[in-house]
Amino acid sequence: MPDLNPPSRLLLGPGPSNVSYRVLKAMSNPPLGHLDPAFIEIMDETCRLLRFVFQTRNELTFPVSGTGSAGLEAVLVNLLEPGDTAIICVNGFFGERLVEVAGRCGAQVVRVDEQWGKPMPVDKALAALEQHPQAKLLAMVHAETSTGVENPVQELGARLKDRPTLFVVDAVTSLGAVELKVDQWGIDAAYSCSQKGLAVPPGMAPVTFGAKAVYAIKKRKTKVSCWYLDAGLLSEYWGGQARKYHHTCSSTMVYGLCEGLRIIEEEGLEARFQRHRRVAAFLHQELAALGFRFFAQEGCRLPTLTTVFPPDQKRTEQMRIRLLKEHDIEVGGGLGPVAGKIWRIGTMGENARERNVAVLIDAIKRVM
Amino acid sequence: MPDLNPPSRLLLGPGPSNVSYRVLKAMSNPPLGHLDPAFIEIMDETCRLLRFVFQTRNELTFPVSGTGSAGLEAVLVNLLEPGDTAIICVNGFFGERLVEVAGRCGAQVVRVDEQWGKPMPVDKALAALEQHPQAKLLAMVHAETSTGVENPVQELGARLKDRPTLFVVDAVTSLGAVELKVDQWGIDAAYSCSQKGLAVPPGMAPVTFGAKAVYAIKKRKTKVSCWYLDAGLLSEYWGGQARKYHHTCSSTMVYGLCEGLRIIEEEGLEARFQRHRRVAAFLHQELAALGFRFFAQEGCRLPTLTTVFPPDQKRTEQMRIRLLKEHDIEVGGGLGPVAGKIWRIGTMGENARERNVAVLIDAIKRVM
Repeated sequence: MPDLNPPSRLLLGPGPSNVSYRVLKAMSNPPLGHLDPAFIEIMDETCRLLRFVFQTRNELTFPVSGTGSAGLEAVLVNLLEPGDTAIICVNGFFGERLVEVAGRCGAQVVRVDEQWGKPMPVDKALAALEQHPQAKLLAMVHAETSTGVENPVQELGARLKDRPTLFVVDAVTSLGAVELKVDQWGIDAAYSCSQKGLAVPPGMAPVTFGAKAVYAIKKRKTKVSCWYLDAGLLSEYWGGQARKYHHTCSSTMVYGLCEGLRIIEEEGLEARFQRHRRVAAFLHQELAALGFRFFAQEGCRLPTLTTVFPPDQKRTEQMRIRLLKEHDIEVGGGLGPVAGKIWRIGTMGENARERNVAVLIDAIKRVM
Repeated sequence: MPDLNPPSRLLLGPGPSNVSYRVLKAMSNPPLGHLDPAFIEIMDETCRLLRFVFQTRNELTFPVSGTGSAGLEAVLVNLLEPGDTAIICVNGFFGERLVEVAGRCGAQVVRVDEQWGKPMPVDKALAALEQHPQAKLLAMVHAETSTGVENPVQELGARLKDRPTLFVVDAVTSLGAVELKVDQWGIDAAYSCSQKGLAVPPGMAPVTFGAKAVYAIKKRKTKVSCWYLDAGLLSEYWGGQARKYHHTCSSTMVYGLCEGLRIIEEEGLEARFQRHRRVAAFLHQELAALGFRFFAQEGCRLPTLTTVFPPDQKRTEQMRIRLLKEHDIEVGGGLGPVAGKIWRIGTMGENARERNVAVLIDAIKRVM
């Protein structure tokens, strides 16, 4: 039987991104039991580093054993009870996903819609809150992976301070790559993934809950409908003295996550954000020179994910497939209303390097 | 900063078990996008191999992106709707977990209790079904990880044929190590994990749904409360033509699972079951010679997991900790009513080798 021999792709799509050899090497360490004291030390170090990248002192900060979508669901299913009101900002596919999951939690969902490609106006979100002041939470996607738009999380957070409503932020395409200050910006709960800015394989979803969110969880009248994602049970495994068995957390995945986070700590957050901005600026300049038009509105374009209309709209998908097949480069296609119309180009984590932009631009010229 | 350098343990607990270098090597391949055609080929091969180990032709057979507990929840949350009746056989910790999760699904749970350490009598389960013929499902743990007991799944399956109630089986500590024939035994849905009999790191939970279970899912009146574990959405990603994006499945984890399954196919299922039985018999003989008493009733002891009372009951935990600290050998402690009283010794997957039993017995002699 031949070896499993997957092609070596340059992953410049919306995630996963490529990972450092240091991360793969860490993951090839022998596995440890999920309650081994040696593993608990690595778990603690991982949580410390997650607090560092989230820029938070929240004790309840840990990785869920699942992908970013499990992180999204973990935050909503713990904070929402049937009948609660959830205000969701929707200007892309992942805002829609929040609506879908909040609905399954039994929440009354109040949508705040904005056009795809534009940032969510803070005043619109606040107006919805004025109409529904009893809302349990208000959720916003920081970096909308479907549109390449950065939403004004910092500004909204500042306006929400001292209100009872919880501020929930999707940091899937921002954590570790775009500035995000959970404590300073007044974010009560956030979730992310491992495979984008953190440059680790998919499979772990960092989450963080602030004091107000923890209080809301403690005051629940109903059990969390999803046992696997129950933050109360998970907190007794990830923290505290007893380290109570919940599920068999993967040491292999935690090794990778821990090593990926150590790399970030070595680089420093500000240097890393700066590198992402610099590389994105280079990419934007090169794409514009080739005649690509931008989908995301100017002034709110993400450094991690660039969305563009190729000059020859009829060959959008064909060229994208050729990039993969002939040049081993993955770029993402559009989702929802822009399916088949745009490309989503990720420059995240390890992949946010000028040399990758150069390789991509060269390949684009060959398939154009 | 020093390398992440976890100790190299011999994992003879209830799981995870050690993994082959082939699996770790496969996992160190470069990651692929979750919709890459090259990844879809590996996904398809993985599902084919999962059907092989489950001994099923069920089309809806795939790994959930989570641990075994996520597999448990995936099966229950898709099959149960609020108000449904679920009959759960409980003779250990994981039977209790089924009760807990079924309750969170909104089901009316009918418990069938048996003493820990004894197998579930088939007649007791059938009597509960006579009293609740409208039950949506009847669930049994095949290999009870808390007690080391093998429950009579084959016998119960034969007695349930032609009934409308779905037969659900927890195969967490049996799949790939203990005989299990999903189709022939009349099992409608089953779930397992990657880190025991399959000898892959934790993080993926194989599940399989037969035609009757798929029909029940299609006929649901309510949405599945957990979006992340929604089998309808997952089936459009793991199968079909369109391969619709759901979550970012981890190529790294799937590489490992695929390679672990290939190793099983090479060895052959019957040879593998035989090896587990042979090694367990050797372990039982050696433990008996040292004065250990067995917890699980004779005649229903699992080949994968042996539960014993150490001769010196006062030093049960102390000796277990010394095995870990002085000999780098993990054996599991008891759960629930037998916490601190028994050891749970796993000989699963790669670890089901006579040499590991020899190493363990030698170390036990040193700490006794």
